[in-house]
Amino acid sequence: MDIETIRHSLAHILASAVKNLYPKVKFGIGPAIENGFYYDFEFPTPLKPENLARIEKEMKELIKQNIKFKAVKISKIKAKNIFKGQPYKIELIKELPGKTVSIYESLPAVATALQAGGDFSDLCKGPHVKSTKEIPIDGFKLTKIAGAYWKGDEKNKMLTRIYGVAFETKKELDDYLKIQEEAERRDHRILGQKLELFLIDENIGQGLPLWLPKGALVRKTIEDYLYQELSAVNYKWLYSPHIGSRKLWETSGHWNFYNENMYPVLEVGQSLEEQQKGRKTKIKEEYVLKPMNCPFHVAVYSSKIRSYKDLPIKFAELGTVYRYERSGTLHGLTRVRGFTQDDAHLICTKEQMPEESEKLVKHGLKMLKDFGFKDFNIYLSTKPKKFAGSETQWKKATQTLETILKNLHLNYQIDKGGGVFYGPKIDIKIKDFIGREWQCTTIQFDFNLPKRFKMKFVNKKGELEEPYMIHRALLGSMERFFGVLVEHYAGAFPVWLAPLQVSVIPISEKHDEYARKIEKQLKDNNVRVELRAENETLAKKIREAEMQKIPYLLVVGDKEISADSVAVRERKKGDIGMIKLNEFIEKIKKEIEEKK
Amino acid sequence: MDIETIRHSLAHILASAVKNLYPKVKFGIGPAIENGFYYDFEFPTPLKPENLARIEKEMKELIKQNIKFKAVKISKIKAKNIFKGQPYKIELIKELPGKTVSIYESLPAVATALQAGGDFSDLCKGPHVKSTKEIPIDGFKLTKIAGAYWKGDEKNKMLTRIYGVAFETKKELDDYLKIQEEAERRDHRILGQKLELFLIDENIGQGLPLWLPKGALVRKTIEDYLYQELSAVNYKWLYSPHIGSRKLWETSGHWNFYNENMYPVLEVGQSLEEQQKGRKTKIKEEYVLKPMNCPFHVAVYSSKIRSYKDLPIKFAELGTVYRYERSGTLHGLTRVRGFTQDDAHLICTKEQMPEESEKLVKHGLKMLKDFGFKDFNIYLSTKPKKFAGSETQWKKATQTLETILKNLHLNYQIDKGGGVFYGPKIDIKIKDFIGREWQCTTIQFDFNLPKRFKMKFVNKKGELEEPYMIHRALLGSMERFFGVLVEHYAGAFPVWLAPLQVSVIPISEKHDEYARKIEKQLKDNNVRVELRAENETLAKKIREAEMQKIPYLLVVGDKEISADSVAVRERKKGDIGMIKLNEFIEKIKKEIEEKK
Repeated sequence: MDIETIRHSLAHILASAVKNLYPKVKFGIGPAIENGFYYDFEFPTPLKPENLARIEKEMKELIKQNIKFKAVKISKIKAKNIFKGQPYKIELIKELPGKTVSIYESLPAVATALQAGGDFSDLCKGPHVKSTKEIPIDGFKLTKIAGAYWKGDEKNKMLTRIYGVAFETKKELDDYLKIQEEAERRDHRILGQKLELFLIDENIGQGLPLWLPKGALVRKTIEDYLYQELSAVNYKWLYSPHIGSRKLWETSGHWNFYNENMYPVLEVGQSLEEQQKGRKTKIKEEYVLKPMNCPFHVAVYSSKIRSYKDLPIKFAELGTVYRYERSGTLHGLTRVRGFTQDDAHLICTKEQMPEESEKLVKHGLKMLKDFGFKDFNIYLSTKPKKFAGSETQWKKATQTLETILKNLHLNYQIDKGGGVFYGPKIDIKIKDFIGREWQCTTIQFDFNLPKRFKMKFVNKKGELEEPYMIHRALLGSMERFFGVLVEHYAGAFPVWLAPLQVSVIPISEKHDEYARKIEKQLKDNNVRVELRAENETLAKKIREAEMQKIPYLLVVGDKEISADSVAVRERKKGDIGMIKLNEFIEKIKKEIEEKK
Repeated sequence: MDIETIRHSLAHILASAVKNLYPKVKFGIGPAIENGFYYDFEFPTPLKPENLARIEKEMKELIKQNIKFKAVKISKIKAKNIFKGQPYKIELIKELPGKTVSIYESLPAVATALQAGGDFSDLCKGPHVKSTKEIPIDGFKLTKIAGAYWKGDEKNKMLTRIYGVAFETKKELDDYLKIQEEAERRDHRILGQKLELFLIDENIGQGLPLWLPKGALVRKTIEDYLYQELSAVNYKWLYSPHIGSRKLWETSGHWNFYNENMYPVLEVGQSLEEQQKGRKTKIKEEYVLKPMNCPFHVAVYSSKIRSYKDLPIKFAELGTVYRYERSGTLHGLTRVRGFTQDDAHLICTKEQMPEESEKLVKHGLKMLKDFGFKDFNIYLSTKPKKFAGSETQWKKATQTLETILKNLHLNYQIDKGGGVFYGPKIDIKIKDFIGREWQCTTIQFDFNLPKRFKMKFVNKKGELEEPYMIHRALLGSMERFFGVLVEHYAGAFPVWLAPLQVSVIPISEKHDEYARKIEKQLKDNNVRVELRAENETLAKKIREAEMQKIPYLLVVGDKEISADSVAVRERKKGDIGMIKLNEFIEKIKKEIEEKK
């Protein structure tokens, strides 16, 4: 039996069970969804999560009765009679076209109900299982209740939605629940709050994260890393504004191709006051929030004459861009509206293209590995239906990229037609612990912007020639990358990234002075350290530091003072004994250096 | 004689001289302005800058004739007759109220002109000198020509404006011209282009600078410096978005008090597509570009319960804000529309306020001195007419600030009524080489936001109490500070700030390899270095590196190779002889360390 059908039938059984337990309930709708099903109800008194077990039990009772599902076509008049006292169903019947409607009766349980009051069955086109015999009785579970507006409209009544998950076997269900539990344990939105990493608040703005001090420390560490990595291979850094003239985006083509993800135009001009001073025309200026940094980087390129001797030119920026996404699609840090790309544009000659692209793939992989990721899916995305540039250009560029992947002996998949309109691309996606993919590195050819912005360089013959251009982000965006990092490490960052690397914990007040000395020495060595000198029990101080997932706790008391040492508790290993302070400093500095 | 009057009369003499030299000219208007005067003309053929000397000579001839100025009131009819063939004058006559107009005749020269064609004198209310005898003949100079729309309206004809400067003595004129020349030599807009530091382009956006790689390197150096300075005294860094919910700014009061400097509202909501899927209401969201970072920092403060033990809390951000300024007021980097503040908010108890404020004043001065500024004007700004908070609060806060300035033995001036509506402030302004002031450090009390945002902390008694808040920027903004730095050093940045610290110049091709080795060694020591290995003469390479104002040029040839040395040319001192490479590295590292 098709799992979709089972899930749909379980929604009916859920409604039937609820009807038996809460006869006064009113029914909304109940579809199958990914991994399960739900049903919306209006309960006379609020339902509590603890009531779910009883409902689940009732569902199992019903399933055991081998209830049969039967599709019936009836007149609307008859249907209205059957659903008397069910305002949501009546509303749906009225809205349906034609004079008849399909309903599904489930017997015997529902037949009994129908006989009793004639007020339940379900409006439905199916399909359903023939009988509940086909439903694996231990393959489903009710998981949660939530509020949901009738028809999703906030002007309507809020109904109670009961969610369930369902699979064909108990093992599949258990596996799913286990992964869900693990996903929840690692959920960066929950950890972000618990570890005080970031803040997303609807009153501040949807999809607009604030980085709290601890999250900001991690971000700064990542930014410093990027700065060093890229400067070492001759990237030039830029800063560009967050708004730019609308004309720029018209020239770039974003205004046409990307408009629905752009925020509305900001229109400014001469003030009334100025006009009254005798200037009669209103000089209108139009700006847009940048969804990409490209036009600014192009402007920098074109601000002087470039020679082939200057190429390749690599402009990098930690550029914060704004893209409008519908509020329903936003998710923590991994899907936001404002984010900072580790963006760069590489401008080179045709001949330099293969070598530079290969370097980029290698650099992307190297960086992702530095952050502890080992599992990747690599995609080569080819020509989409709508494209800029010529067939020949696309073919050559795609071949170039494919050759690189082959030379590097990398496994990759072809994403046919998945290229951006302006060129083919290589994407490197991180695979996380539950198999989800997160796009990080992207290396994109661009046949569009050099032409549109009339970019040139003076070639060896002294003629003007159009350069080649690559857009690339290696980590992707600070926000998404950080969100994925949090989940990857379940908040327990490696030492070099941890917002706090060491917590110094004096056993009692008389050890505070020594603890402060240690704190200072660590600070002087650029170790991020806190001192827990508050008047609490040792156990509580240790527990709290551990909850913050700090890599090292240094407990100090009389014994440690007399030995000029610290008692080290390592996050992964537990107590590792007493170490001389100097030795500990060398150890942790080495770990930071080696990105451990 | 009043200098204003002299300047005004010079404008008339200028017109008179132009009339004599270009009989077919048409006259616009000619007022006195700051430091001089101008007159707008419509020339039959374009005037060139080299014609100014001849006009100036003619003016001197006229002045020597002891021309007398005479005010006459005449009927509009007569005036129109006098100004026949002068369309701009006729237009002005028509626009003036009443039946008569004032004109100034200047005799004899203009009398002759009047007699000759009756078509020149000037519409004018005066006052003027009685006779050109009163004009210091060597106290003025024609400086430049420029285009200017008639009545400043771009729909009108473009006229030619001749500018002059005028003073009471030749010495004053010479001093003024010298300062102007110096100002021009140091103008950050000119140097910014010449040294490739930044780019401002109307097509990108007015008042929206792009930082070119070399400027960006200096900015990054300043940012790194700030990061270290502030982290060392326990500031916590944040990142906040560039747009925020309009509600935030309504709560903060900026929407009311600051609206005319804010960009228009960005309105977004559900897409049509989503609505068609059955959602009927349009959920509108309104965002604004942030003109200040405060509401975000307040949100971070209020994201958890704060205890008196946590105070003072210091949140810092390099926050890029957008403030709309009329295009006419924009000026290079010193007056822009988008800029990055070295912003921070200090939240503390009432008792901590004096000590924390004093620390801020000291820190501001220390930092400005680190950048080589020595001359400051300090202002204490007091209660303006419109203010938040109570009289008592203002009095106490102002006293606190004054006491601090006195304790620190600082000279300061009172800027009466110059405080912001939310509290008194201390401003530290840099004085530049021509006496202009640039506001950098500002330390502002805020009685407004803690109340409006209901900020609280738990005091010693366990009760909720409203904290005190200080806004402060120590450098001001990256853009303005950098602009001032460029002018202060005339682009010759001290070693620690210079975008390029060393240029390695091989004498000929055969020294390239050694030069490259030196380049690498310097890079490994974090020195910002370039290699001038192009096929040019040594003289040209040196000249070009000097034009880039690079602090050290290291010339290398056979002699240097055999001695494992470099021939050092220091920007300020010239050749300082041959030094072992290691020694040079130690020397420059020490200078960078000591901010020289």
